[in-house]
Amino acid sequence: MPVPASLLDTLHAAFGDSACSTRDAERIAYAYDNSRRNALPDAVVFAQDHAQIEALIHACREHRVPVIARGRGTNTTGATVPVEGGVVVSFERMNRILSIDPDNRFAVVEPGVLNGDLQRALAPHGFFWPPDPTSSPWCSIGGNLACNSAGPRTVKYGSPRENTLGLRAVAGTGESFRCGTYTSKGATGYDLTRLLIGSEGTLALITEATLKLTPKPSSLRTLRATYRDVSSAAHAVARIMAQPVTPCALEFIDDVALKLAHDHGGGDVPLAGAMLMIEVDGEPETLPSAVDAVSLAAHGEGLEELRVAQTAEETQALWSARKALSPAQRTISPNKINEDVVVPVSHLPELVNGIRELSRKHDVLIVTFGHAGNGNLHVNLLPRDDAERERAHACLAEVFALVISLQGTLSGEHGIGLVKREFMPLALEPATLNLMRDVKAAFDPDGILNPGKLLP
Amino acid sequence: MPVPASLLDTLHAAFGDSACSTRDAERIAYAYDNSRRNALPDAVVFAQDHAQIEALIHACREHRVPVIARGRGTNTTGATVPVEGGVVVSFERMNRILSIDPDNRFAVVEPGVLNGDLQRALAPHGFFWPPDPTSSPWCSIGGNLACNSAGPRTVKYGSPRENTLGLRAVAGTGESFRCGTYTSKGATGYDLTRLLIGSEGTLALITEATLKLTPKPSSLRTLRATYRDVSSAAHAVARIMAQPVTPCALEFIDDVALKLAHDHGGGDVPLAGAMLMIEVDGEPETLPSAVDAVSLAAHGEGLEELRVAQTAEETQALWSARKALSPAQRTISPNKINEDVVVPVSHLPELVNGIRELSRKHDVLIVTFGHAGNGNLHVNLLPRDDAERERAHACLAEVFALVISLQGTLSGEHGIGLVKREFMPLALEPATLNLMRDVKAAFDPDGILNPGKLLP
Repeated sequence: MPVPASLLDTLHAAFGDSACSTRDAERIAYAYDNSRRNALPDAVVFAQDHAQIEALIHACREHRVPVIARGRGTNTTGATVPVEGGVVVSFERMNRILSIDPDNRFAVVEPGVLNGDLQRALAPHGFFWPPDPTSSPWCSIGGNLACNSAGPRTVKYGSPRENTLGLRAVAGTGESFRCGTYTSKGATGYDLTRLLIGSEGTLALITEATLKLTPKPSSLRTLRATYRDVSSAAHAVARIMAQPVTPCALEFIDDVALKLAHDHGGGDVPLAGAMLMIEVDGEPETLPSAVDAVSLAAHGEGLEELRVAQTAEETQALWSARKALSPAQRTISPNKINEDVVVPVSHLPELVNGIRELSRKHDVLIVTFGHAGNGNLHVNLLPRDDAERERAHACLAEVFALVISLQGTLSGEHGIGLVKREFMPLALEPATLNLMRDVKAAFDPDGILNPGKLLP
Repeated sequence: MPVPASLLDTLHAAFGDSACSTRDAERIAYAYDNSRRNALPDAVVFAQDHAQIEALIHACREHRVPVIARGRGTNTTGATVPVEGGVVVSFERMNRILSIDPDNRFAVVEPGVLNGDLQRALAPHGFFWPPDPTSSPWCSIGGNLACNSAGPRTVKYGSPRENTLGLRAVAGTGESFRCGTYTSKGATGYDLTRLLIGSEGTLALITEATLKLTPKPSSLRTLRATYRDVSSAAHAVARIMAQPVTPCALEFIDDVALKLAHDHGGGDVPLAGAMLMIEVDGEPETLPSAVDAVSLAAHGEGLEELRVAQTAEETQALWSARKALSPAQRTISPNKINEDVVVPVSHLPELVNGIRELSRKHDVLIVTFGHAGNGNLHVNLLPRDDAERERAHACLAEVFALVISLQGTLSGEHGIGLVKREFMPLALEPATLNLMRDVKAAFDPDGILNPGKLLP
């Protein structure tokens, strides 16, 4: 269904000819995201201010045409793929840092600001914004908020939901609104801010965010622990999280992943049953005792080697395995299925052992690594041909069932998007899904915002 | 309007005769809360399990009778006063700690558990739940969640919204649901958990909460700084919050409050222009550097004395002023108007000076103290007679206007309830209020849950 001519006229008037296109070049470029799914939008617009978003949603609502918000398309769930056509609105040109207020520990930004650019701008003030997806240099804050994207530091500092004070947005009704506060505390009505965070552009489009800043600790120490097997490493994670010094990163890498990284050019990567990367941060005087505390907890049944980096170069070398991992996986399987399930930390041993069994049962290569301090593991299935791809999909359903049986949930930081919505009934009761649908209807009565996503 | 007989029959069947009453004794006892407002309910029931709450809401919905959830009635906003009659459901008997899971840093509790009882149960495991209202020994977790109640530790550890993983609840439709996770990270659909927290029993009744636990730091140091005037102290707060060591309490007390506490039996209370109570926590080795960092920031224009407690007795003595304050205020004015406005920390000097001017202009005694690290001040107006009470109300409207002009909001931790709902349009745009009303309709289409509260 092409966009009606009168709607196109309105969009051209609102965005200008250079920021509104129905040419194939733009439609193809904005048809996909990092999920490698794709579907052509009917038009692409490039927003530069709030008023344009308001005009866009008003016009699209009048014509019942879908509106799909897009940051930089780094998400892995198809959340920005315009499966029902309509207008993709890219926020890449709406990328100003409006203010940095270190005295009040907040920054006000437009959604198109890149996460990495924000961190660079905050550094001279001694602050950072905790969410740090691996895609940080090229993912946008708006995308981080839409998907509640996190990263390794979440174990200590929280996700976007814990690090955002307020938002300006336009609902699916076309109405503009502000929610939240400029203060670190608030009890003035319903928390619409957190409701929008993680809603994947299905309730409202965010046009401005007030982000809570955290003082950047001046020092960091990195530890690497290798274990005889995944189970010993998973037990160590639970021990580390049960003592008072919370690390600022606690990453797990299984033996399959280590071998992969080692074989694909990571000479420094140790070959072990499993590995933990642990970081602690703080003021310099506090680090020795923090290192002692986590080292003590890392020790136990199955520990093979514990190394503490003394220099920046050593830190770099310790991280080499984690860094080599993503390119190595692509070499094996361009069609990797990339999940990010979460379970309570003490259930990690059962999860990693269960995944191992499923890998054998379905004869599919599975690499497991990720943010173990939150119980959030990236379970990557690496099918190499069509037959394996089919087996991988059968295996995936069992992975999710295992996760739910262990008090876990489908996604820790990637979100649901297109690819996981069919599994939502595994994680949420019908009544919960119905309430979510009613909330959706309150914000977007005509269902024009990102249709076909998140809710089954 | 008395409760229909058939509804009463249903309630007696669901709760049993000993937990369902229409006698004056119970109606009067559950007519009020700490706001000192009151209105008689038609019936009072005492819940003991989830199924009873489901039966209650189903039955009341059928008869369009209001349902008002009540923890221990310690809130100050009239949020639990049954202004339109109906059934008050007290959760005081639904007070079991269902599980404490230190390995996964969570506890599952029923809503009637007292905050203080939970803290005591957690202590042997080395954990605590950060929200710590002054009423902690006798306020319930359910009430803390309903009002997003916080306390001094929020400056470092966050409010209930940052410290709750998941909920079980019954919506105003009568439907039971679970939301949230058992994990410290989640991106599976809309965040209904945070939406319910702070919704003051107007969307759903919480029957179970999974609370995120924090390791209890083993050591604490208390500092007390006195200043020449409120403005110097307010500037010191902003300096302390702009450096990396975040205190676990940063309390402000103005000169009027100090004099009051001193005169009413607080011989240890210093008479100064203003005072800050500062606490830092952590592992023992880290405390000297933390004390140094906040001491350095506390120093500056107008500092008169900085004392660091070396013993438990000295700590106790330093806190005496804060402790003496509440009883002292009641002596002067049993009808104190107790607000808890918030502004960004750097605007505290303007706020305290502005309040001083309003106190003079309206000739009403105002005592200002509270959680300065969050910019959250308790502004207590102390009228002594009817004439002063009238002036106090006029003054209050100007206090709120001042707060909003300083990027602040109406409430940091008390909520809105009955007494602040008329001021909501000062803080929130019409579009935001409309969205809140639509969310309310999604959860409670017949408006039976706590009518007359929160939304104007």
